[in-house]
Amino acid sequence: MSSVIGNKVKLSVFGESHGEAIGCVIDGLPAGIKLDFDEIYKDMARRAPGRDGASTPRLEKDIPKILSGVIGNVTTGAPLAMLIENTNVKSGDYENIMIVPRPSHSDYPAFVKYGGFNDVRGGGHFSGRLTAPLTFAGAVAKQALANRGITVGAHIKRIGEVSENGFELNCIDKKLLRSLSDKAFAVICPESEEKMRAEIEKYKADKNSVGGEIECAAIGLEAGFGGNMFDTVEGELSRLLFSIPAVKGVQFGLGFGFASANAKAVNDEYEIKDGRVALKSNNNGGVIGGITSGAPLVVSVAFKPTPSIAAKQNSVNLQTMENAELEIKGRHDPCIVPRAVPVVEAAVALGLLDTIL
Amino acid sequence: MSSVIGNKVKLSVFGESHGEAIGCVIDGLPAGIKLDFDEIYKDMARRAPGRDGASTPRLEKDIPKILSGVIGNVTTGAPLAMLIENTNVKSGDYENIMIVPRPSHSDYPAFVKYGGFNDVRGGGHFSGRLTAPLTFAGAVAKQALANRGITVGAHIKRIGEVSENGFELNCIDKKLLRSLSDKAFAVICPESEEKMRAEIEKYKADKNSVGGEIECAAIGLEAGFGGNMFDTVEGELSRLLFSIPAVKGVQFGLGFGFASANAKAVNDEYEIKDGRVALKSNNNGGVIGGITSGAPLVVSVAFKPTPSIAAKQNSVNLQTMENAELEIKGRHDPCIVPRAVPVVEAAVALGLLDTIL
Amino acid sequence: MSSVIGNKVKLSVFGESHGEAIGCVIDGLPAGIKLDFDEIYKDMARRAPGRDGASTPRLEKDIPKILSGVIGNVTTGAPLAMLIENTNVKSGDYENIMIVPRPSHSDYPAFVKYGGFNDVRGGGHFSGRLTAPLTFAGAVAKQALANRGITVGAHIKRIGEVSENGFELNCIDKKLLRSLSDKAFAVICPESEEKMRAEIEKYKADKNSVGGEIECAAIGLEAGFGGNMFDTVEGELSRLLFSIPAVKGVQFGLGFGFASANAKAVNDEYEIKDGRVALKSNNNGGVIGGITSGAPLVVSVAFKPTPSIAAKQNSVNLQTMENAELEIKGRHDPCIVPRAVPVVEAAVALGLLDTIL
Amino acid sequence: MSSVIGNKVKLSVFGESHGEAIGCVIDGLPAGIKLDFDEIYKDMARRAPGRDGASTPRLEKDIPKILSGVIGNVTTGAPLAMLIENTNVKSGDYENIMIVPRPSHSDYPAFVKYGGFNDVRGGGHFSGRLTAPLTFAGAVAKQALANRGITVGAHIKRIGEVSENGFELNCIDKKLLRSLSDKAFAVICPESEEKMRAEIEKYKADKNSVGGEIECAAIGLEAGFGGNMFDTVEGELSRLLFSIPAVKGVQFGLGFGFASANAKAVNDEYEIKDGRVALKSNNNGGVIGGITSGAPLVVSVAFKPTPSIAAKQNSVNLQTMENAELEIKGRHDPCIVPRAVPVVEAAVALGLLDTIL
Repeated sequence: MSSVIGNKVKLSVFGESHGEAIGCVIDGLPAGIKLDFDEIYKDMARRAPGRDGASTPRLEKDIPKILSGVIGNVTTGAPLAMLIENTNVKSGDYENIMIVPRPSHSDYPAFVKYGGFNDVRGGGHFSGRLTAPLTFAGAVAKQALANRGITVGAHIKRIGEVSENGFELNCIDKKLLRSLSDKAFAVICPESEEKMRAEIEKYKADKNSVGGEIECAAIGLEAGFGGNMFDTVEGELSRLLFSIPAVKGVQFGLGFGFASANAKAVNDEYEIKDGRVALKSNNNGGVIGGITSGAPLVVSVAFKPTPSIAAKQNSVNLQTMENAELEIKGRHDPCIVPRAVPVVEAAVALGLLDTIL
Repeated sequence: MSSVIGNKVKLSVFGESHGEAIGCVIDGLPAGIKLDFDEIYKDMARRAPGRDGASTPRLEKDIPKILSGVIGNVTTGAPLAMLIENTNVKSGDYENIMIVPRPSHSDYPAFVKYGGFNDVRGGGHFSGRLTAPLTFAGAVAKQALANRGITVGAHIKRIGEVSENGFELNCIDKKLLRSLSDKAFAVICPESEEKMRAEIEKYKADKNSVGGEIECAAIGLEAGFGGNMFDTVEGELSRLLFSIPAVKGVQFGLGFGFASANAKAVNDEYEIKDGRVALKSNNNGGVIGGITSGAPLVVSVAFKPTPSIAAKQNSVNLQTMENAELEIKGRHDPCIVPRAVPVVEAAVALGLLDTIL
Repeated sequence: MSSVIGNKVKLSVFGESHGEAIGCVIDGLPAGIKLDFDEIYKDMARRAPGRDGASTPRLEKDIPKILSGVIGNVTTGAPLAMLIENTNVKSGDYENIMIVPRPSHSDYPAFVKYGGFNDVRGGGHFSGRLTAPLTFAGAVAKQALANRGITVGAHIKRIGEVSENGFELNCIDKKLLRSLSDKAFAVICPESEEKMRAEIEKYKADKNSVGGEIECAAIGLEAGFGGNMFDTVEGELSRLLFSIPAVKGVQFGLGFGFASANAKAVNDEYEIKDGRVALKSNNNGGVIGGITSGAPLVVSVAFKPTPSIAAKQNSVNLQTMENAELEIKGRHDPCIVPRAVPVVEAAVALGLLDTIL
Repeated sequence: MSSVIGNKVKLSVFGESHGEAIGCVIDGLPAGIKLDFDEIYKDMARRAPGRDGASTPRLEKDIPKILSGVIGNVTTGAPLAMLIENTNVKSGDYENIMIVPRPSHSDYPAFVKYGGFNDVRGGGHFSGRLTAPLTFAGAVAKQALANRGITVGAHIKRIGEVSENGFELNCIDKKLLRSLSDKAFAVICPESEEKMRAEIEKYKADKNSVGGEIECAAIGLEAGFGGNMFDTVEGELSRLLFSIPAVKGVQFGLGFGFASANAKAVNDEYEIKDGRVALKSNNNGGVIGGITSGAPLVVSVAFKPTPSIAAKQNSVNLQTMENAELEIKGRHDPCIVPRAVPVVEAAVALGLLDTIL
């Protein structure tokens, strides 16, 4: 049981939603990386709640305070520690869930795991709020990757019944990925935003919530990173991606589409292009045999609907061990997906940095 | 880059398809586990090729030789080492692929990664044959789990266009899972076998291959295993599952189905059943917040079509750096999925054992 | 390169001597441990400088601020994060050492390692000040051990030419170990303090410093913890102990005394005592074959003299690459050993907790 | 509890003294290293018993069989697996120790740890015989280091009351270290061999055994390897060195000599030599602040006397729980130190390779 991950770059995340502070320690960063903190804060703002109707009204400042590892914006090679103080906390909303666990939330499994000692306020250490330090660490990793010519970006591929096309091998470029990072609602096709927002509003109005899918790409990766057997790029990234609350599926390239495909149709053939080996297609999403192929990395992630909804639900009372009904108060996202885009980018960036170092 | 995995139970896999031998070392097994080697060999036989028209004619004995860690079928607590000598090797078939890499195979990425020093005969260390030691280790893990009342089993959910229903919360029991382990072609619905075999034959006749999906379940897991943040059950299992060649996607419960779902429809509510907390549905596949919920674990895995096909394909010549055509000789599976069932069970069993110890 | 250690309990330490703050994250602590913070602060006070003539006049408050992982003094099972803000920093003292490295300090090796990007003020991340979070984490570990009946304590065995007897098998008890923890200058024999202080003063007056040895014991350990091959108790503890600045040697039981000994004289024979297996001697220091033997754990650690002395020393100028003389200003300990006692206890406690969990 | 170690290069050791075979898997070796197996076998022969009166008459062939990871003497980048079949095994000698544990041996702690399921024949997995695969892996590591200009060598510094001088900063060179590797009895001063052999014979004649000290050096190491806090070169090497049976102390440079020293006498000052930064002394043994200083690495290791002696000893009967006397039959070394020289070199080489990769 660990909130630490990584081999060369180790990330240790701490904090509870309604505790003193949340934060992280990034260990093993190379010395001499010049960090652009405006870029980092921009990613954190993309994740932060309260920016529009698609997310919770809870307002946070989420200003990270750098404690160590940086002098004048340049990494020192010592651990980079950061904290964000918790503000605007309304714990009262949560007392009840210690006794009546919220369906599809960590409440009950965590109650069993920690024998009732865990902090349940706002989900405690399981809160989506813990993705803030993850986003910070990922934003740092993205800059370390940028120094190596690697760019990471993601878009919302689906919300409920509304979807847009994924990344096309021939149209993923730095410009596209950067443009996605500049959007509060990251979609490739401008029309998608309005349709997806409408889909979210539909469920919000019904005291309900809706799931979605985020697709993330990385370009500039040379062939030959990753592997062997148990250190596949897919395995490394998926372990990080599943640490994002509500993620229930991870696939690379065609992913589950491969299950109904045949080799003639989906094998990625090679050709010589500009004197270099190139792939004629990228159904494998940039990873073959667990190793980068030189084509863009393309991974997509499925999110379940935010389990916290205003509608009444069935649950149990852990004290009386009787059935109970639950009405969740407090403020919650009708759809977490728009805010999760920079978090997915962060997980991918951290995994890639650890892989290529 | 590592062929070692695990925290408490560390598995180290070695060998190359056409080398002296393949095998593994299982480190950290508790002492005193009584092993039923017939059960273990049965799993290995399920994975072994050449048993029917659905797999390659290459015949292997695949008799594992136990080198250490066991006295009189009981584990000693020291590392359990096993090897399988390679026999019936026809290297000649593979010489060409050192120069002309097979599309969608590890050949090219591995060539770049190892600077051409890697053993490419039969895929070398990337060969599907390396799943034999993985299956062995998983069969050992399954028995360690059985001692704790946990049963693991899997079925073929899809091959190409042919699919069958997945595990239903109320009908997954030990009997079903055991019965699947007794089948050479593991399907829940008897009619599925004929249809799926026909689908495979269709592609085989066309010098082509087809992908599929395997769904695996584990029952008897108490709530409270796994977590925190980066040690989610999903992340641990997916890292192992992606180490199986050709796996391109992993999902838990509804998985990607969550992306178009809403909370009212898919939240797993609680109820008191026989005096204990029970889930009324299991859309989360037995894992909530990264921790086991007490419901059956249900994970499904997507396999791409075997990239080695008899049909002519486009590739490049890495020596002359010119486009080239490739015709793969040798013996290959038109569909790897039927043989992969015990391998998926093995990866899940190893991940669960490491999680609960 | 990592400031993270541990398997089940992972400790991540961060901070630089003259940065914003120092601190740590303790990951994997069991939930439900009731912490006595007065005890924890007492250990930190024992390590803190400025309490008497034997240590540097630099005054620190060193009040740790708990950020997460604890509610009402009880651990939640989430990472326990702590920070100490840096105060009373006089950086001016240190500018010169960026160019002229201090002999026997990390300055030059770190300069090479980090390409000059590391924070050298006060030794940066290599400062002895980083032992404050280590002491904090160890104090927490000591309480987790105490819940399991294990007590850890240490004494100053030698300073320069002055030494006192080590722990005797038959007189190590909880009372002795606790009494040592209550002393600012931890010696078993009351007479030792005055002699050792005099030895320190002698070198201080000469603008010099002196080394010493600390012996640490742990009682209440059952037989059977630790091992196998690469996870020996000796190896785990030594890796932690060598992370304490100035430690250059670690030995268990007789340690280097074994090199001139014979088996008849030093083998630890067994006997039945009160119906249980007991050792008639403890030359192995409580660890045999890398596993706890049930006898008290006894480890001793050698410290080199504080390399920072007021006397003029020879060094080089890394800019001009010419020989140079160096006079170190600032405030330094003529002997670090008295303050290092709780740090040694901390390293031992952390290693033992990780081993027995 | 693990017989696996390493970060970039992972070593997994398996086997029991009287089982089928012993061996190891070396994972993470770079591809393309040309191995000189004669050199490797030479190191194994130095460790092998039965070569002269100073060691046990048990004769082993100890011919390692390479299973994977090498083609035509060149590493492929896949795990390098090796096994040695056990021959000439006389188990009968050991049956009694299951009931009456040998003093200062792993028998009793291992009995408790494994609940009596461990293989006790010949010490099982705790046998000194397991240092054979360790020596093999170290010999491979030495060649990987040699490719980077690093040479490792060791000598017997002390046996009982007989000692010789350690490595002098100005006289450690490749020629000296290589010459030590060519000796069956590795001493720097030719006179030492006769005296030390006589010391061993003295104890052998008395049905006794004697301890000793081995000092190991590595030259060609650049400054800047190792660190931070918990990844000190000292900590990494000591963890490996304590995995060698009978090792009870590890020190670097002056080691415990520092405890009675003062800074003016032992600080390692810098000077410019041939335009490069050089140390005027090497009391720190080539490691400062946990990082290599560019001076030769010098580490010394204390061995306890072989606990197995022919003389009668006191022990207990674990079945009747009564005191018992024990007379150990079988064949044992009166002094393990001469054979341990290549094992110490191996541990140091493995630790350094893992540190610099």
